[in-house]
Formats: sequence, C-alpha cells, structure tokens
Amino acid sequence: MKKIEAIIRKSKYREVKEALHSVGVNFFSYWDVTGLGNEKEGHVYRGVSYSTSDIQRRYLSIVVNDDFEEITIQAILNSAATGDVGDGKIFVSEIKECYRIRTGEKGGDTLK
Amino acid sequence: MKKIEAIIRKSKYREVKEALHSVGVNFFSYWDVTGLGNEKEGHVYRGVSYSTSDIQRRYLSIVVNDDFEEITIQAILNSAATGDVGDGKIFVSEIKECYRIRTGEKGGDTLK
Amino acid sequence: MKKIEAIIRKSKYREVKEALHSVGVNFFSYWDVTGLGNEKEGHVYRGVSYSTSDIQRRYLSIVVNDDFEEITIQAILNSAATGDVGDGKIFVSEIKECYRIRTGEKGGDTLK
Ligand SMILES: Nc1ncnc2c1ncn2[C@@H]1O[C@H](COP(=O)(O)OP(=O)(O)OP(=O)(O)O)[C@@H](O)[C@H]1O
Ligand SMILES: Nc1ncnc2c1ncn2[C@@H]1O[C@H](COP(=O)(O)OP(=O)(O)OP(=O)(O)O)[C@@H](O)[C@H]1O
Ligand SMILES: Nc1ncnc2c1ncn2[C@@H]1O[C@H](COP(=O)(O)OP(=O)(O)OP(=O)(O)O)[C@@H](O)[C@H]1O
Ligand SMILES: [Mg+2]
Ligand SMILES: [Mg+2]
Ligand SMILES: [Mg+2]
Repeated sequence: MKKIEAIIRKSKYREVKEALHSVGVNFFSYWDVTGLGNEKEGHVYRGVSYSTSDIQRRYLSIVVNDDFEEITIQAILNSAATGDVGDGKIFVSEIKECYRIRTGEKGGDTLK
Repeated sequence: MKKIEAIIRKSKYREVKEALHSVGVNFFSYWDVTGLGNEKEGHVYRGVSYSTSDIQRRYLSIVVNDDFEEITIQAILNSAATGDVGDGKIFVSEIKECYRIRTGEKGGDTLK
Repeated sequence: MKKIEAIIRKSKYREVKEALHSVGVNFFSYWDVTGLGNEKEGHVYRGVSYSTSDIQRRYLSIVVNDDFEEITIQAILNSAATGDVGDGKIFVSEIKECYRIRTGEKGGDTLK
C-alpha cells in the first residue's frame, strides 16, 4: 500500500476531487496547511513587495493499493496543474498495514 | 519505530485518548481533517439527499516503539468503533529515526 | 528522499524557519496541531492543577534529499530548543517518490 500526499492550490481542490473520483479513488483525507516556497516567487504590487510563497495550500492524504499508485498520481497531475510556479508537490511513501476500525479487518481489501 | 495514524470520529476522541493512556501511550499529536468517503454512505432526510462522507474527522499521529505497535492498534480498535459505517481507518508506517529536541538525543528511548 | 517532521513550540516557529532558510531549506509545509504529552508535566497554579501537555504545537513537514537530512535536523535542533520539557520531537521517514505538479517531473531534482 502507498500513501500519496498531494499539496495543491486550494482553488484546484474541486477539480482534483473530481479527477480522483473519476478514476475510482473515493476515499481520502484533507486539511489546510501553510506552504513555504521559493522566495523568488515574490511579486510587487503597487510598489509593495509580496511573497506568494507563504500561502494557504490544501494537503491531501490518500492511501491506495499499489495497483492504484500510478492512476492516482496521474489524476492529480492532470487536474492540479495550472502551469504557473507554485502548483505544488506529490510525495509517495510506503504504508505497511491498514485497518478498518468498524470491523477490525486489516490489509489492502479495507481500501476498497 | 512505527507511526500509527488513526482517522477517527471526533465524538470518539475522548474514549480513544483514555484507551491509549490506559495502555501507556501518553504522547501523540492530533488535528482535525475533512474525510471523503464512499458516496454510498449518503442518506436521504425529508426528501433531501445528504452525503455523510464529507465530514469532520480527527487525525491522530502516534509514533511508538515496535513493541507498542500491536497494543496501540488494539486500544484504538477497541475504543473508536461504533459498528456503523464510517468508523475510520488506521495506517501504519515505518519511522527511521526520532529526536528529542530538548536534549538532541535520538532513538527509541526518546519515545518513553 | 526523506520526510522530516518536526513538532515544535509555536513560539519557536520564526527562529526555526530562519534556521532552515540559512541552511538552504526553503520549502516546507506546516499546520497547527494539539500535542498530548506526559501528564507528569502538569503544574499547579493558585491551587488549580493544569496540564501543560495538551497544548498547541506547530507541525512542520519537510521533504529533502538524503544529503540534506543531517543539516536540516541540526538546524531544527539548534533553533527549536529552549531546554525546558516539551520542546518537541523530530521524526524521519523515507519518501519513495516526489513529483512537481507544474511540470509532471519526478525525482530528487524537484526538491531543489
Ligand atoms: N520539499 C517540500 N517539503 C514539504 N512541502 C513542500 C516541499 N516543497 C513544496 N512543498 C509544499 O508545496 C507547496 C507548493 O510548492 P511549489 O509548487 O512552489 O513547489 P516548487 O517545487 O517550487 O514548484 P514550482 O517550480 O512550480 O514553484 C509549498 O507551498 C509547500 O506547501
Ligand atoms: N484510503 C484512505 N486514505 C486516506 N484517508 C482515508 C482513506 N479511507 C478512509 N479515510 C479516512 O477515514 C475516514 C473514514 O473512512 P471510513 O470509516 O468510511 O472508511 P471505510 O473503509 O469506508 O469504512 P466503513 O466500511 O466503516 O465505512 C474518511 O472520512 C477519511 O477521512
Ligand atoms: N510519540 C509521539 N508521537 C506523536 N507526537 C508526539 C510524540 N511525542 C511527542 N509528540 C508531540 O510532541 C509534542 C512535544 O512533546 P515533548 O517535547 O513533551 O516530548 P518529550 O519526549 O516529552 O520531551 P521532553 O522530555 O522535553 O518533555 C507533544 O505535545 C506532541 O505533539
Ligand atoms: Mg515554487
Ligand atoms: Mg466508509
Ligand atoms: Mg514532554
């Protein structure tokens, strides 16, 4: 099993959610975070310098079976990108075990 | 060392915390997240369709030594379940190293 | 690649951020969490017992290339410690893959 963590623009959340649903990824958790990024992304507006990097992002955490890793990542890449700097990142890591609390069952079937 | 992440109903938090304390797990971090779940969990109330899946959950992150993995999971399973769909999930992953910031020490002893 | 998670005092955030920037770690995400700690840390004020352990903490999540692991940890240890109990923890885990959403590129170069 894999944990796929995606840090996306909040404005892209609905599109990403729909892209995930359309490939059969219906379960995930999310919360809002502050993202620190490259200071070079700062901009100037009416003579005042702003950093666009210290901004609100949405953090999605999605645990999937190994055969869903690629499809999940592609769905996020396709739906979360604008092409402008700061579209975010995806991180993939290993999950050793998973339990469904309601039944106590464990294993990859609990992700279906 | 293992990281045990549990996504539970907020209404079960106090019970889970007490169950963890009673097995000697006194340290953890938590925050609130939104959980997306199976659309089939939607219900109809007075003719209006509601989704019960896009709801607030509490996310617990608990790092323990390997010999505490099973006891921690059992404590959560026993205290967080209601038997109704949507009781949540537990995910287990590997932690390679741990540091106590106050002293700079590292290793599993910092978790005691 | 490694994920370095640091749970620090909120009051130390600015110092930690500056320490990270000064060693070239410019990208990370953070959010606020509640930390449960050792009940022995409770104190008594005007006859009323308080727990100092159930308090707000800041959770930093930083993904770095392996050659940045040590320098990142040292920067946090040096900047986040006060010497009083409750300075927090650092957890290190493995990240298998990383993607830059803007371009779809993957690998450690996307962390630079
Ligand atoms: N190494 C990292 N560790 C943790 N979070 C990160 C890391 N890099 C980026 N993030 C998170 O992702 C958000 C967006 O990052 P960003 O898209 O600017 O990455 P980038 O590599 O600079 O891509 P781009 O070249 O498009 O700007 C940041 O605000 C932060 O929340
Ligand atoms: N694969 C997953 N990745 C990340 N978070 C998840 C995943 N599955 C569930 N969650 C989180 O757990 C919460 C509860 O999920 P839920 O209990 O409905 O799981 P379930 O497998 O559908 O169990 P049940 O059969 O009892 O409904 C979700 O709202 C979400 O926050
Ligand atoms: N094992 C753990 N798992 C998850 N979070 C933890 C764990 N231990 C500590 N934390 C988080 O770190 C915060 C600070 O912990 P704390 O600094 O008290 O650790 P400690 O080991 O007791 O160190 P000290 O001896 O300095 O008190 C906690 O409030 C909690 O948010
Ligand atoms: Mg950037
Ligand atoms: Mg469900
Ligand atoms: Mg403590």
